[in-house]
Amino acid sequence: MTGQLISDEPTTAVLSGVRLAKEIRAEVTTTAATLAEAGVPPRLAVVVATDDESTAWYVRSIANAASKTGIRCDVIDLGAGATPAEIRSELASLSADPSVHGIMLQTPLPGGATVEELAASIAPEKDVDGANPVSLGRLSAGLAAFVPATAAAVLELLEHHEIPLSGRRAVVVGRSNVVGKPAAQLLLRRDATVTVCHRYTRDLTAHTHPAEILVVAVGQVGLIGAEHVSPGAVVIDVGTNPTVDGGLVGDVDETAVTGMVAGLTPVPGGVGPVTTALLLRHTVESASRSTA
Amino acid sequence: MTGQLISDEPTTAVLSGVRLAKEIRAEVTTTAATLAEAGVPPRLAVVVATDDESTAWYVRSIANAASKTGIRCDVIDLGAGATPAEIRSELASLSADPSVHGIMLQTPLPGGATVEELAASIAPEKDVDGANPVSLGRLSAGLAAFVPATAAAVLELLEHHEIPLSGRRAVVVGRSNVVGKPAAQLLLRRDATVTVCHRYTRDLTAHTHPAEILVVAVGQVGLIGAEHVSPGAVVIDVGTNPTVDGGLVGDVDETAVTGMVAGLTPVPGGVGPVTTALLLRHTVESASRSTA
Repeated sequence: MTGQLISDEPTTAVLSGVRLAKEIRAEVTTTAATLAEAGVPPRLAVVVATDDESTAWYVRSIANAASKTGIRCDVIDLGAGATPAEIRSELASLSADPSVHGIMLQTPLPGGATVEELAASIAPEKDVDGANPVSLGRLSAGLAAFVPATAAAVLELLEHHEIPLSGRRAVVVGRSNVVGKPAAQLLLRRDATVTVCHRYTRDLTAHTHPAEILVVAVGQVGLIGAEHVSPGAVVIDVGTNPTVDGGLVGDVDETAVTGMVAGLTPVPGGVGPVTTALLLRHTVESASRSTA
Repeated sequence: MTGQLISDEPTTAVLSGVRLAKEIRAEVTTTAATLAEAGVPPRLAVVVATDDESTAWYVRSIANAASKTGIRCDVIDLGAGATPAEIRSELASLSADPSVHGIMLQTPLPGGATVEELAASIAPEKDVDGANPVSLGRLSAGLAAFVPATAAAVLELLEHHEIPLSGRRAVVVGRSNVVGKPAAQLLLRRDATVTVCHRYTRDLTAHTHPAEILVVAVGQVGLIGAEHVSPGAVVIDVGTNPTVDGGLVGDVDETAVTGMVAGLTPVPGGVGPVTTALLLRHTVESASRSTA
């Protein structure tokens, strides 16, 4: 039967973000060098107010990526005891500093403070992770604004892998301000018909099954299995759930849906690297505009 | 066969906005009187830059309703030749005037100017029609903000008629910044599973048919017919399309869906009067806050 390797099983494309991230970082490196030569070395400031280990890990990975592309990255650790007023004051002072082009505020925040309230102190033109409600409003109104990097990464990946969006049925699971809501806005802007599902959604399968594009951003291992998807679907897994052995898995049961769907982003190596690369791109964009 | 008036046809409740609007206006009248006694007569400013007759009609109806509730309403007509700079300057000057509590910018605008760009000059605390992108962003982020009055009216009507929303399937047809998008945000905030449809949606019926709550805000007579709805659906018709005889009709074919759906808002007499009443409520809310 040699030569008859015919299979009825559809293949699932692995929608990697690695090459895309590399391309973005290369472009950022070029722009950063040009800016530095012009006397505007691009600079990103990350404000941290937590002892959380996974935050520290994430911030280190951003700082490393920044330094490799020629962006100076300052991590300003205010400590887990910082008050909302101290955080606001730091964000305002970085906003006023002409040598700083990008500002990020890391979660978690101490004592019940919310990103939405505090991020209003980040100057919109330096709000490279789209955390200021002004940025979200401008996005929603169709105006120019920095989009939260993770949501932007979802769209960049879809575009990179040439997934058509206009008129197609997109379903977003999760409604956070940093991923679900802005991703829904971006898909809507690209003329997809968009449904947002969340913890109160009854019969999640009924909503996700007809999805042509499924974006999952909840933070729950195994949330999406074979019964939730249909052949031809493109699935973007935004979940990054730590495993006991120090790895990461997404919200989608990769084993269950592979062979069923048309495409799936891996975790790690999908949305994550693109997100970091976009934060850097936003920073050089801000720096470029500051010289205009 | 007398006495056998048995009908299989389900009845459709008329979800009127008239009583709700009256209740809101009564509450506004009381608050406005209290504010006037306290030396803070509530004041609404409507900026117009068009010769459009239907705009003039709408603005007069707001001014009338305002005056009946004890709110002073100034209509500032800049003329159809006004430049964006003149409009911005007027909005900024009203924003700075402590005697003005509510500011609205009417469409259409001259020469390709967009509400989204110009409304950024309305102080968010006076932005009673939620036109400033900051208001939209705060709404989207779950923070306190004025919601565009028409979108707020949709939710007020659903609440007034005690339509449950949590976990239910809501479909919004239309994605404007003034109705579709903010209505979707508000439904999402109330824990509905929300789908937004628009001109690029393929097979509108497939999306609207399973809707438990259907909000239609497109501006197209007869867009929604019997085939688009299912029994049990609650339909909110935001369309206000002028008829040749000087009347108004909505986007929903009232005759076709009556008897099929559980409830339908009439046009006129549904969303419209509630919208106007909410603009007045927002104005006294702003005035009350200015005294705090």
